[in-house]
Amino acid sequence: MDASVTPLRHGGLSLVQTTDFFYPLVDDPYMQGKIAAANVLSDLYAMGVTECDNMLMLVGISTKMTEKERDIVMPLIMRGFKDCALEAGTNVTGGQTVMNPWCTIGGVASSVCQTSELIMPDNAVVGDVLVLTKPLGTQVAVNAHQWLDLQDRWNRIKLVVSEDDVRKAYLRSIDSMARLNRTAARLMHKYNAHAATDVTGFGLLGHAQNLAAHQKNEVSFVIHNLPVIAKMAAVAKACGNMFQLLQGLSAETSGGMLICLPREQAAAYCKDIEKTEGYQAWIIGIVEKGNRTARIIDKPRVNFGKVRRYHRIICHFFFLNMQKFYVIYMSWGEGTCL
Amino acid sequence: MDASVTPLRHGGLSLVQTTDFFYPLVDDPYMQGKIAAANVLSDLYAMGVTECDNMLMLVGISTKMTEKERDIVMPLIMRGFKDCALEAGTNVTGGQTVMNPWCTIGGVASSVCQTSELIMPDNAVVGDVLVLTKPLGTQVAVNAHQWLDLQDRWNRIKLVVSEDDVRKAYLRSIDSMARLNRTAARLMHKYNAHAATDVTGFGLLGHAQNLAAHQKNEVSFVIHNLPVIAKMAAVAKACGNMFQLLQGLSAETSGGMLICLPREQAAAYCKDIEKTEGYQAWIIGIVEKGNRTARIIDKPRVNFGKVRRYHRIICHFFFLNMQKFYVIYMSWGEGTCL
Repeated sequence: MDASVTPLRHGGLSLVQTTDFFYPLVDDPYMQGKIAAANVLSDLYAMGVTECDNMLMLVGISTKMTEKERDIVMPLIMRGFKDCALEAGTNVTGGQTVMNPWCTIGGVASSVCQTSELIMPDNAVVGDVLVLTKPLGTQVAVNAHQWLDLQDRWNRIKLVVSEDDVRKAYLRSIDSMARLNRTAARLMHKYNAHAATDVTGFGLLGHAQNLAAHQKNEVSFVIHNLPVIAKMAAVAKACGNMFQLLQGLSAETSGGMLICLPREQAAAYCKDIEKTEGYQAWIIGIVEKGNRTARIIDKPRVNFGKVRRYHRIICHFFFLNMQKFYVIYMSWGEGTCL
Repeated sequence: MDASVTPLRHGGLSLVQTTDFFYPLVDDPYMQGKIAAANVLSDLYAMGVTECDNMLMLVGISTKMTEKERDIVMPLIMRGFKDCALEAGTNVTGGQTVMNPWCTIGGVASSVCQTSELIMPDNAVVGDVLVLTKPLGTQVAVNAHQWLDLQDRWNRIKLVVSEDDVRKAYLRSIDSMARLNRTAARLMHKYNAHAATDVTGFGLLGHAQNLAAHQKNEVSFVIHNLPVIAKMAAVAKACGNMFQLLQGLSAETSGGMLICLPREQAAAYCKDIEKTEGYQAWIIGIVEKGNRTARIIDKPRVNFGKVRRYHRIICHFFFLNMQKFYVIYMSWGEGTCL
């Protein structure tokens, strides 16, 4: 399960709780704060919990920052985190701040729920379809954007993508990562979702396999459609086996919900998300009889993450020496975030 | 307040929550894990909350550890943390593990409570006395122990303390830091405590001042008695202004409860703790009319933290290269843990 669920001493209530923290991966501190909060909250949303009662913030201030960098960057990160919490209808009521060689940001999200507020992630049935609510490719886009400043890396991908494409994909990623999965979670109740998880460090297939493994029924997931941020499939291909995006194994940060929905409800679910939020969701696969595994078909359709409307991007680009953020990020990845 | 208190949507209940993480400060990984858990839980206990519903663990594995060090040290730290949670009647149900230059350990403690389970820390009245449930000097002892291996540091204190004294004080500190404040919190209810806090990074006086500042009544705290781990007052004095132990400003980790108790109950409270746990508690001061400040009298009595019984020290001393733990700790202190 994406969040821990602890039955409480008080009639029928459960404490649903999750924590996550990581290293900065975008050079906009404010948006980095929002991404961190959205990422923490996502684990509650994956359980169908839409009301977060409380958040705590976990901050590591880099010992390598100058005083000036620290005094500009850290308050922005914290403000982004808090603003995202407010957007989610909750509050940051405490936390812990330490000095650390690497900058870290994360938090804790908690909700005390009636059992009816939870969607246990184990009720998929044969005939369900799989829906994904955000496009894939955030890690590829974030890396490609860093490579604009690293000549030898850039040389590996410049034949398949322009600088402008990379910048657009990067902004699209930031917008996507900072977006809450709350509406997606609310609509899971409305359209009778049978199971869900959020796509993060293990990639789409990794999380799909984990979700499949925990089903009560003998089902398997088959994915035939990969929505990817524009041009990022080409970038991933040009990098050989580095990302394994089309194999479904590229890490995502604050990725979308992967949801098992009754077939007759899925289209309405996607349409409702689009109407409510202006973002597309995709039917990406089916649930068939099987031994609780997940796979991507041989030649999946790659859908280029069409975006209807861009909104809510508030770019506070700081042309401070953000190189350290890059260095930090480059040493972080799937393998190290356990 | 030591923990955040969030009123919930469900009849009269509140979510009481706290988080803390820090860097290793003792060279026994298992005890370090226990200390981290006891330290996190202490903030709940300070609010009178004795039932923790759930803990999460936050772990940073040092990138500087060899694989062998990592595979021995980290599981021991985690086991210590979990064992301490069990001792507190709760469970670790989740958490987050990352790679980090510095090893970190900490967690989140949560409790869903009726208001009656809480002791709000603002009801001290003139005539109360102040009780402290653990001796001071953990930071001094931990540092002095590190200095056994640092010749120039050791030279500064060797006239006032023997190696054996330092080792004893160090073991006494570990035992004290790993000890739960749960019995202290339970007895706060039994003996009608009016306010409490736990003594950590700001030292006894720092936390006393903070507690005094938040009182509803016009009171001040006067401290006349400092219980200190044996010989550590002399070590602190030999170090000049480095620790400010006798000024009440030396940081403590997982320190004792500082409690405002009705005068006629305080002796019984201390006796009850000693009977239940085998540890001494001390009456260290009084609550008088004043402007919500706290002070230590000019020449406080220094009580050498007599210990009736030693128990529960399980020493898993590992003679791995633990030097890095020292280096980490030396760069951490009052000033950096915000």
